[in-house]
Parts: sequence; structure tokens; C-alpha cells
Amino acid sequence: MDKQYKAHELAKGQRDISIAEFFERNRHLLGFDNKRKALLTTIKEAVDNSIDACEESEILPEIIVEIIDMGNDKYRVVVEDNGPGIVKEQIPKIFAKLLYGSKFHKLKMQRGQQGIGISAAVMYAQLTTGKPARITSKIHKDEPALYMEVKINTDTNNPEVLSSENKEWYKEQGTRIEIDLEATYFKGKQSVDEYLKQTAIINPHVTIIYQPPKGDQIMLVRVSEEKPVLPNEIKPHPYGVELGMLMKMLEKTQTKTVKQFLREDFSKVGNKTAEDILENAGILSKTKPKQINRDMAERLIKGIRETKIMMPPTDCIVPIGADLLEKGLKKEVNAEFYATVSRSPNVYRGNPFLVEASLAFGGMIEKEGSVELMRFANRVPLLYQQGGCGFTEGVVKTGWKSYGIQQSNGSMPQGPVVLVLHIASVWVPFTSEAKEAIAHYPEIIKEVKLAIQELGRDLGKYINKKKKVGAELKKRSYIETYIPHITEALTELIDKPEEKDSLSKNLSVLLEKQRGEVESLDFDPTKNTEYDEELKKISMEEEYDEE
Amino acid sequence: MDKQYKAHELAKGQRDISIAEFFERNRHLLGFDNKRKALLTTIKEAVDNSIDACEESEILPEIIVEIIDMGNDKYRVVVEDNGPGIVKEQIPKIFAKLLYGSKFHKLKMQRGQQGIGISAAVMYAQLTTGKPARITSKIHKDEPALYMEVKINTDTNNPEVLSSENKEWYKEQGTRIEIDLEATYFKGKQSVDEYLKQTAIINPHVTIIYQPPKGDQIMLVRVSEEKPVLPNEIKPHPYGVELGMLMKMLEKTQTKTVKQFLREDFSKVGNKTAEDILENAGILSKTKPKQINRDMAERLIKGIRETKIMMPPTDCIVPIGADLLEKGLKKEVNAEFYATVSRSPNVYRGNPFLVEASLAFGGMIEKEGSVELMRFANRVPLLYQQGGCGFTEGVVKTGWKSYGIQQSNGSMPQGPVVLVLHIASVWVPFTSEAKEAIAHYPEIIKEVKLAIQELGRDLGKYINKKKKVGAELKKRSYIETYIPHITEALTELIDKPEEKDSLSKNLSVLLEKQRGEVESLDFDPTKNTEYDEELKKISMEEEYDEE
Repeated sequence: MDKQYKAHELAKGQRDISIAEFFERNRHLLGFDNKRKALLTTIKEAVDNSIDACEESEILPEIIVEIIDMGNDKYRVVVEDNGPGIVKEQIPKIFAKLLYGSKFHKLKMQRGQQGIGISAAVMYAQLTTGKPARITSKIHKDEPALYMEVKINTDTNNPEVLSSENKEWYKEQGTRIEIDLEATYFKGKQSVDEYLKQTAIINPHVTIIYQPPKGDQIMLVRVSEEKPVLPNEIKPHPYGVELGMLMKMLEKTQTKTVKQFLREDFSKVGNKTAEDILENAGILSKTKPKQINRDMAERLIKGIRETKIMMPPTDCIVPIGADLLEKGLKKEVNAEFYATVSRSPNVYRGNPFLVEASLAFGGMIEKEGSVELMRFANRVPLLYQQGGCGFTEGVVKTGWKSYGIQQSNGSMPQGPVVLVLHIASVWVPFTSEAKEAIAHYPEIIKEVKLAIQELGRDLGKYINKKKKVGAELKKRSYIETYIPHITEALTELIDKPEEKDSLSKNLSVLLEKQRGEVESLDFDPTKNTEYDEELKKISMEEEYDEE
Repeated sequence: MDKQYKAHELAKGQRDISIAEFFERNRHLLGFDNKRKALLTTIKEAVDNSIDACEESEILPEIIVEIIDMGNDKYRVVVEDNGPGIVKEQIPKIFAKLLYGSKFHKLKMQRGQQGIGISAAVMYAQLTTGKPARITSKIHKDEPALYMEVKINTDTNNPEVLSSENKEWYKEQGTRIEIDLEATYFKGKQSVDEYLKQTAIINPHVTIIYQPPKGDQIMLVRVSEEKPVLPNEIKPHPYGVELGMLMKMLEKTQTKTVKQFLREDFSKVGNKTAEDILENAGILSKTKPKQINRDMAERLIKGIRETKIMMPPTDCIVPIGADLLEKGLKKEVNAEFYATVSRSPNVYRGNPFLVEASLAFGGMIEKEGSVELMRFANRVPLLYQQGGCGFTEGVVKTGWKSYGIQQSNGSMPQGPVVLVLHIASVWVPFTSEAKEAIAHYPEIIKEVKLAIQELGRDLGKYINKKKKVGAELKKRSYIETYIPHITEALTELIDKPEEKDSLSKNLSVLLEKQRGEVESLDFDPTKNTEYDEELKKISMEEEYDEE
């Protein structure tokens, strides 16, 4: 036998860690830090999946959400959709295996992207109540519905099917998930209610029928029958590809030559661009992809960087649009001024994205405290981790003072403003698996700042104008205070009590006329004697006119 | 053939996502957001592993860190230790497979805990430079060293060995990793230099020999030959176990009865406690673990919660200790006041942890700006994500004003303070896989606040005293200004120029005496005439004494 050293002893402890075990212990990374958030995260993952599935099948989504209080901090959550359903073989994996799904490998704008969310909810539910997830799925009106109970084996990250049977279901098609979990239900900020309301606002084609644990059913009925444009899937853009990724692509490609590889496996590379890249890289067009070694691949990267290539196609991301965004904000917030911008797409690490922003000012918005920020990513509301969000960095690093909004250095601006920010991308970079905040990519933060600046300029103009009008109104009100007294005096003076009403009216008209003409008319009615003079003169003219 | 519906079409897109692919795309979750951070994260993961390995083998760690600038934003990183080495079979998995290692399944205080870090660095290196990691390992002076080149297959999350051979190595034993990656090197805050310096301070038994890419080698020599106490591994504490986990443990246990299960698979459960739990749960002691169904398990959880159980053992966590922590801070910061506290262990979700805090005030510390916070977790410096850290929440939510430190509501306190916070735990909950910030568990935040309050009270007393002394000193300095003039006058008056020096000295002694006695003596030397009188009187007495 070989000699045994410390290294051998240590080797015995080494072993695989299942991703499910990992997240079981690190559940706060998935948004299950506490009972309150657990409820929100569970519903969010289920609803996002439902809307994604409906949209992909071009069905107008109708989502039923039900929360039932089972006592002792246990809740039953039911989410049901009218989507395409899920085939039998896929149900266990989709609901009870982390890192499984159809979205991760597609460069396409979708709500879900990781293949973690709903399985994480199932895992948390079984961890806290020991109960399996109950899934019902019906893929066509002519097919029976299927009912399944599934659990996740956290040691292996594989699903376990506890029961599987056909059953009657009133729906033509759809998916229903029912899970029991430890949770607490609150209303207000960061609540399920808030999430569903914001979801309805930002997805006007979605109907949500929501039964909270207490109180009446809430109907959030769609306001638009128009299905959103389906985003296209895209190929990676050359500018976003790094050496290691390129080498992996070269190894896997079905193409015969490196030129063909560039043209077919990337977006925005035509014949000419491919030739330019290869010339800049000093590589022959006919070289087989498999022949490209590390050094040649490095030259290829250099070639790509030195070649001007068109920006990625943008039909892979579908903006909400300025109109719709502003309409949504108006529904939510009663303000006096609104401005909205939908920026053109840009790219971070090869991924197209765009930023949209909408701003409401004044009116019924709380005057004290920080600007209220509503954040959305691929049409999903983000309710947690505002402090750690790239959006927030963009807001804080914009100079709001020049728009007439208070701000101390490096802080959130203060004042009656609600700001909506939306990022649409084929791959939204989140700061954690819980998908609560946007990572701090400089390209994204820059776009956020540019969007806010566009809105800010309009806001600044409005606030300036408002200040002027405000000053003007103040003056008018001084004068108006005196009109009854002057009327009284004049009536007595000319001794025509029957003219009192028309005199008062004429004085107001006069004020209107005068103030309208001379914007910066600056006199104090309590002191200025010319005022009375003028009033007299005009009122007499009016009298003559009437005769 | 069966009919094909939309669900079938969608099913075709469903597939497994490898954890490596997942993190390849979400690399910012692992601390590889940008080139600068990539360098720090790589070195941090390698150094943390090296120190862990040495400590576990009771070797005083001597770590060599070298950064070589290869041009074009490429750097070669070398980290070498004098640890136990790694056996051949384990090298590929440890360095080129995510979620693999010995630490995850142990409830024990260690720097590493996830089995992700170093493989993530290898993955990032190969992604950005296409090059494999080069590992050298020697497990004993009588064995040859082994040299291996490994890559990670991100499609499968499995290692690939490109080369493996024996070779000569000057060391008796140890591990050396060499990787090339895209990076940028900076000095200053959040730099490798800073991380290594802080590591040396908080680990006084570690020697680090550091060659930065520019400039001289930096030697951070150990100041203590004492190895830190080895923390013990513990079993889970009943209070931290949830239903799902309990059911999993019941399924896996080797024990024969539920009573035996409670006693042997948990910490702090003796015979009496086990009986109490079972009585509260209404379960018979002899019940076989496999017979416990979901409902009974739920009763068992209830039984546990209703039974008083001792806190977990605390020899699984080893504090740095108040002395050492303060010594470290003193080495780093030249201040006028220091205070340190090492709190007793507490528990979050069944995991023992403790918080230590050390504070420096005044002296050479920058007077303007926020309090400087230095954060450590299991003796590892945390340099990023301060804003999102539970430590920061604890600092911000403590009322600093009562200690004489400025603070606006909900903000970092302002003033000449450096605050060190350390959490030691068998499982540190981080906000992301990059392990940059502590998650916001209420139990942890509470301990942080209590620690700061302890220090704050002492600081408050010091600042108060300082204010008094300051006022006193100001008065003294007034008086002192006048001593030479008075001496001059008195000398002339008594016409004894030879006594001038002793007169001046006596006046100072008198001042000392008087001010020492009457702390709040409050007069203005420029106005008060009694002062001169008194001076005269005393100075004459002194004269007499001298004769």
C-alpha cells in the first residue's frame, strides 16, 4: 500500500456539491431570505413563467393567483394560466430540478432566463412544509388533464414523482401549480399585491384574477387586446465574444470554413465583414474551424475588434414603448407633469438591451422624501434590493439639481417625483439569482443616465415655468383679494349699486388682460397708487362701452 | 404517431443547464464583473484556499503571490503555499469543477465554504485567455512533485486534463497555481495590495511574500508563531432545522430509534433533552426514524421549539480575540483612542456565529467624510459591496450621535473613526457567490449593533472628556501666552534679573497646580486682575522657599 500523507486524509473529504444542496443552504440568494419574501418570490416565479409561456404561444394571458392562509404561518399558493400546458415528461424536471429549462440557451428577451426560479420555490416549499408541488397540465382540449405530485431530491438535484394520474379539468388548456410553504402575508410595499398591480400596469395585455388570503377577489383586467410583438432569438454578436467562448464555438460549429463560421454563427456578419475580420486577423478564409488554435483564435478576436461591425439586430428586444409606459404611469400616479423616453438599443458584452424611462412630477405625489423609483426588467417588477441596483446608481449619479430637484451628493434626489425605469434585454444581468437588482455594467448605467437626462431637461423646463407661473399667481391673488373692496368703493363713488356685479367682473377681466400681457409686472397692490388710478380709468371706459 | 401540440414544440427546447455555463454567463455573481475585480477575486480565492489548507494541516502558512504583467491587459497570477499539497486524483476536480470540495458539507469555520471560488477563477482565465490552469503539487518531501494542466468543460462542468507529469520542485511540500487572465492592476482601495495587507493584519500567523507587477517585492512577515486554535466541526443544532431538512435527516440516519437519532445527529441533545422533545411532540422514543412521516416530523419540529435546548457549542468558531484585533488595528491606523470587543457566540438558523468589533478614533484619521469600515468574515477581508452588506446596515442603524459622532438619519456616521467588524461562523451567509457582503439576517445585524454600542459608550466617554480637556487646554494656552510678559514685568519689579528663569518656571508650575485642581476655572487672563495678584503672591512664596 502507498504511504498515507495529510493530503490523502484531506482527499477523503472532497466531494460533489449538488446545486440543490447549495441553494438549499444559500436560499437567500434565490429570494427566500424570509417568510414574507418567500411568498412574493414564489408567486413571482410562477406568474412570470405563465406569462412567458402564453406569450410564446401567442395566447393572451389570463392568470389566476390564489393565496390561502393555512394557519401557523403556512400558506397555500395556487397559480393557474391558460397557456400551452406542459408535456408529461417535462413536468418533473421543469418544477423539480434546478438549472433546467428552455430559456437559458436562447438569446431572446424573456422574463425567465435561468431555469432556477420555480424549482427553487418548490424546494423551499418542501423544505418548510415537507409537501410536494401539485401540478396540473392540459395541452389540448381533446387531451385529458394530467395531475402530478413532484419533489426535488436535493442530494442529486433530480425530480421525484410521487403521483401521476389523468384527471378532469374545466380548462381547455393551461398549467396550474399548487404549493404549500411557510410564509407571511403583508399588504403594502414589496407585497404580492404590489407586484401583481405593477405587473398588470407594465403588461397591459395580461388579465390577473387575484384572491388574497383576506378580503375580496381583485380583478386586474387587461386594457389591451393586442399581444406584444414576439421578440426574435438572435445569434451572438462578435463584439461580445471572448476568447474562451470563441474557442468553444469553433469547436462546436457545423460550418466548414472559418469564413462560413463567422457568417453563420454570428449576427451582423456578412460576406464583406467576414473577409475584413479575417484579413485583420491574418487568417485564410478557407481555414477549417477545427484548425484554429488558441493563438489564431486570439488573432481572430483582435481581427473582430479592429473591424467595424453593425450593431446587433434589435428585433430581439421589444420595448414597452413611450406611450404605453406613460399610460401605465398615469394610471398609477396622479401627477401634474409626465415625460417618457424609450431609448434606442445599445450593447453590453454583446447583448443588445434598451432602457426606457418615465417620470411623473408634482400633483398628488408625496412632496417630502426621496424620489420614488419603480424598476422593471423585461416587464417584470423588481421590488427588492433597490440600494444594490444598477438603476439606482444611474439615478444617483445623475445631477438632478439642474432640473430643479434637490439632491445631496451621491444620494437619491428628493422631491415629488416618481421615476419608472425599464430594461429590456436578451440577457438581463442580475446581481443575484433572485433577480432583484440589475448588475452594475457601465454601459447600462450610462443608458440609464442618458434616459434620465432626457426626461430631466423637460422636467427642468416645466419646473422653471411653474416657478414663474407660481410667482405670477401669487401676485394675482394679492390683487384679487382687493377686487371686492375696490368694487365696493367704486360703486359708492359712482353711486350705481346696480352696476356692482358687472364692475367686479370687469375688474377681474382687466386683471386677466393686464397680467396676461406683462408677465413680470412687479408691484405691490397694497402700496402702489398707480394701480387705483388705472383701475378707475379703465372701469370708466367700460362704463362708457356699456352705455 | 401522437398528435403534436404547442407543448410538444416547447418541450424540444427544454434542457439541462450546466452550473458552469450558468456562471460563465453570470460571472459577475462570482466576482468577475470587470478586469480589476477579476484580479482581486482570483488571488483572494487562491490565497484563502492556501491558508485554509495550511491551517487544517497545522502548518504555519507561508504564501507566495506573484503578479506578472504580460501586456495587453493580460496578467499571470502565481500563488504558492507550503501546505499539505493535493493528491493527483483530486487536482482536476478541485481546480476545474464548480461545486466540488470538502468544505461545503462540514459545519466548521473556514474561509472557503462553497467549492466554487478557485474553479471560477480557472474558468474566467480560460474564457479570457484560452489557457489552462497550471498546478504543481507536492504532498511529501519523499514524493515527486506533480505538474498538471487543467481546463473546465463548461458544457458539462467536468475537468479536462491536458497534461500531467512528475517534476522537480524545490519545496518539501505545497501547492502552486499559475493562471493567465484578462485583468487590470491598480493600487489603492479594493486592490490586491489592500487585500493582502488586510489579510496579514487579521491573520498574524501568516507570512505573505508578494511581488506586484511593478515595484519591489513586499514582505508581510508573520508577527505571531502561534497557530490559531483549530475550530471543531459540529452537528446541526435542533433550533436551526426545518421540516424538510429534518425529514431528509430522518431518511438518511444510521440510528435505530428517534431518540437515538436526536441524541446522535444533533448537537446539544442529551438523554433528558431528547426525552423532553419527544414528550412535547407526542412521539414514542422507540419509534424508528423511517416510520416518522410528514405529520409526525412536523410534531417533532414543534416538540423541538417547545423544549429548552442549550445553545450550540462554540468551539466550532474561533474568534480573533479583542487583543489581537486591536493590535492589528493599531498597526494599521494611528489614532488617539482605541476600543475593542469580542462578543459571545449567538445563533442564526442554527448556525453559531460571533461578532467582533474594533474602533479607532482621532489622531491621524481623516477628519472629514464617512467613518471607514473594514469588514472581515472568517478572517477574510471583504473589499466590495459595502453598501449591500449586513455589517453596513448594523452600522447605519446604530445611533452614533449619542457617542459624539455626527450622523444623518439612515446614513453612515461621519468623522475620524475607523471601525473593524469581523464575523466568525461555521457558515457565513453571503449575499452572493462572490462572498463580498454579509446577508441581512436580523440576528447578525443585532449582534453588530450590540458590538458597536459597547464600543460607542467608551468612545462617547472619551469624546466627552476630550471636549472638557480641550476647553481646559484652550484656557491654559491663553495663560501660557502671558507668562513671558508677566515674568518680564515681575523680574523688573523685584529687580532680580538672575531669578528670571526660575520665576518663569514657577509661574508654569503654579498654572499646572491651579488648573489641575480647579477643572472648570473660568476666567479670562486678559481681564482678570486677581490673577496678577495671585501670581505675585505665589511667586514671592517661591522666592522665600528658595532662600
